[in-house]
Amino acid sequence: MGNTLSLTAFVMNTASHITHGTWKQPEGQQRDFGQLELWVSLAKKLEEGGFDALFLADVIGLYGDYEGGWDFHVRNGLQIPSNDPVVLASALAANTNRLGLAVTANNYQQPPFSFARQLSTLDQISKGRIAWNIVTGSSDNGFKNLGHDGLVSHDERYDTVDEYVDVLYKLWEGSWDDEALKKDRETGIYSDPEHVHKIHHEGKHYRVEGPHLVSPSPQRTPLLFQAGASTRGKEFAAKHAEAVFIATPNPEVAKALINEMTDIVARNGRAKEDIQFFQGLSFVIGDTEEEAWEKSRQLEEVTDLKMMIAHMGGGMGIDFGEWDLDTPLEDIETEGVRSMFKWVAQGIPDRTPTLADLAAHHTKNTRIVGTPEQIADELAKWLDAGVSGINVMNAFIPSSYTEFIDKVIPVLRERGLVKAHDNTARTLRSRLFGRDKVNERHPAAQYRHYFTKENQFV
Amino acid sequence: MGNTLSLTAFVMNTASHITHGTWKQPEGQQRDFGQLELWVSLAKKLEEGGFDALFLADVIGLYGDYEGGWDFHVRNGLQIPSNDPVVLASALAANTNRLGLAVTANNYQQPPFSFARQLSTLDQISKGRIAWNIVTGSSDNGFKNLGHDGLVSHDERYDTVDEYVDVLYKLWEGSWDDEALKKDRETGIYSDPEHVHKIHHEGKHYRVEGPHLVSPSPQRTPLLFQAGASTRGKEFAAKHAEAVFIATPNPEVAKALINEMTDIVARNGRAKEDIQFFQGLSFVIGDTEEEAWEKSRQLEEVTDLKMMIAHMGGGMGIDFGEWDLDTPLEDIETEGVRSMFKWVAQGIPDRTPTLADLAAHHTKNTRIVGTPEQIADELAKWLDAGVSGINVMNAFIPSSYTEFIDKVIPVLRERGLVKAHDNTARTLRSRLFGRDKVNERHPAAQYRHYFTKENQFV
Repeated sequence: MGNTLSLTAFVMNTASHITHGTWKQPEGQQRDFGQLELWVSLAKKLEEGGFDALFLADVIGLYGDYEGGWDFHVRNGLQIPSNDPVVLASALAANTNRLGLAVTANNYQQPPFSFARQLSTLDQISKGRIAWNIVTGSSDNGFKNLGHDGLVSHDERYDTVDEYVDVLYKLWEGSWDDEALKKDRETGIYSDPEHVHKIHHEGKHYRVEGPHLVSPSPQRTPLLFQAGASTRGKEFAAKHAEAVFIATPNPEVAKALINEMTDIVARNGRAKEDIQFFQGLSFVIGDTEEEAWEKSRQLEEVTDLKMMIAHMGGGMGIDFGEWDLDTPLEDIETEGVRSMFKWVAQGIPDRTPTLADLAAHHTKNTRIVGTPEQIADELAKWLDAGVSGINVMNAFIPSSYTEFIDKVIPVLRERGLVKAHDNTARTLRSRLFGRDKVNERHPAAQYRHYFTKENQFV
Repeated sequence: MGNTLSLTAFVMNTASHITHGTWKQPEGQQRDFGQLELWVSLAKKLEEGGFDALFLADVIGLYGDYEGGWDFHVRNGLQIPSNDPVVLASALAANTNRLGLAVTANNYQQPPFSFARQLSTLDQISKGRIAWNIVTGSSDNGFKNLGHDGLVSHDERYDTVDEYVDVLYKLWEGSWDDEALKKDRETGIYSDPEHVHKIHHEGKHYRVEGPHLVSPSPQRTPLLFQAGASTRGKEFAAKHAEAVFIATPNPEVAKALINEMTDIVARNGRAKEDIQFFQGLSFVIGDTEEEAWEKSRQLEEVTDLKMMIAHMGGGMGIDFGEWDLDTPLEDIETEGVRSMFKWVAQGIPDRTPTLADLAAHHTKNTRIVGTPEQIADELAKWLDAGVSGINVMNAFIPSSYTEFIDKVIPVLRERGLVKAHDNTARTLRSRLFGRDKVNERHPAAQYRHYFTKENQFV
């Protein structure tokens, strides 16, 4: 909204999310992620410090094997143990007033009726501050935890999630008209039955009668985040997402991706301004450039490259544990690695890239090192590229965020790169888009006043 | 634990739970159940005032028809709208320190893996204060909301929940050994893989690979509540429940039921002291007996008998809307009513009972009217009958509880009928049973050290 950057904090309810190994340092309080106090304190700091939302990533199962199994993941705390984000979001909603709270969940974790009710309840108690990051599941073990034989095919996952969100939209937007809720002590009418509808959904994957049990929450449909990168994923995002999480290597690539997406968005009957892009970045901040690079060097020292490569391979279905970290990438004969070779090589033109370089590449690639002023210079470029927000990744919780708040945000404010401090309690969608509900071009909107009293007895 | 009564507050995240119609009065702040502040304030009062737990009832669908449909339910707020209890419990956990929080959920609402994770997360952030009230679903609409053709048969429901809890026990008790979690910065070991296990559950209704994603919470298995009243339900409770919610008409009946259950408990290899009984009661409190009865008369005046009978019939599958409230019960030719006739007639020997009498019977039957001293006298009888706790039902939130706290609890304390005020933060199970985990006779305990490193690669 306007030419400023929104800020979200990208975290996971686990000890080692992305910058692996840092929980082993005293500064890495994420080691104690099971203690609510850590999160409440962080959420309050983010809210006070000018962040728009806390974004909770999630995976409902183990990453793929490393060194032949999952011992490595357990030993190093690589996203296991991990706790439920919906439960955490509720506890944080009860302890904040303005901060948005984004939860990640795939469509296999709960039947749509139960999930719709939990999110509507969250949106009510938070007074409209909830976002849902729609994922389709990517972990073989995750599917085996939920009754499947293993990872469901990419296409079937997207077919299923298409229907899942359709059910949710019916419940969130169509089941209760705006006029339904009365709570009228005089007439004794709590809700007007003319305006509360069953949805009678009968699809290929889901059957849901309704009505939705929760009366309309401030946003009805929570703000919808998505991060699909495949062709089908981009189509899905262009159709449904209001905020898209991207992890591009530089503003130019971001700009190209945003342009590509804008075309797909238009093809889906939506407008450019209906969708915002949040670039994932992490920061190493110094009072001088030298200090920043010294801190960066220290961070690289405590970053566990084996964990980095286990995480990356676990997501790709490649067990990199077969190779030493100093193995030249060109010696690793797998399709996925060959395609990344050039990408990694660009960053280190002076020598042959190794597995360790690949491990380090991803986070270094999205890390900005410098003084607050230099960081502001860089962020201005992302803003110019069309990015609406930065999803701030961390090395240490809470210090990655407190440093950013204390040192970088004041400079960003001075330069008008972020909004001025705003104490108004408002919905998350209002904060990002200036309105509480999805607009008329969003597919959820088709179900407004779609169900009539007549068809609900079908 | 000892010869005192525990106290739980029996509420639902809705406007009209049991004493129907009272939301229409200014005193009935449950009208605004969607506002978190109401619940946070209540929870803090209960905690400070000496209650052991807040018990959140739930139904995941509409009650059966009244007057030919569900308009009546919507118009009167009869358990619709209603919000999710797990989400509410988390927000309350974050705002209390000692109060137990019991959530109701049936085994169809979420796959066992997802549900186990949410409850473990709740138990962690609450530091062990969570109970689960196990229900099997009773609403036809509820099943249609969750993908079924309608109400699943009673036997199949119990078969399914038997397997569901078995999966949960494996995740909660067996997947992580006590020695597993290290969080050790020196060695860099977060968890010891020798002590984290997949469960490889393959049953008739569920397939779950594991491992559980959440490290052991303070109670592991949350305290288990149940309220089964059928033969199969009693067997289930005797086997699994640690606290049983009963709604008997008087201490004699309670005593007989407790004796009956004690035999079944023994047959299931558990001991009398492994299971506690919580009697549901409501209270009308006066400084004098006359004042109490005048308040009781006023409460009857504002109680909506049509809602009472709609609720009762909706649970029985009888649409009582066909009959006027003054219809003599003997004229209503349905099996369910004939069996209740004698029960209602006992309370009004001087005339022929009507549908209105049946409507009023249930709550009046479990309502104690009197001065704090008289109420204490009555509660002493329940304690003598073998009841361990009172599940305090309300007419008005919060005043039914604040009055009980201000006027009755001091007298109960004086007489040693409830525990002295205890500021210790402890788990809910410790509060009720003096230990954090289920004991060795509980079926969940069989899975301790059940899974070995060897069998997890099966």
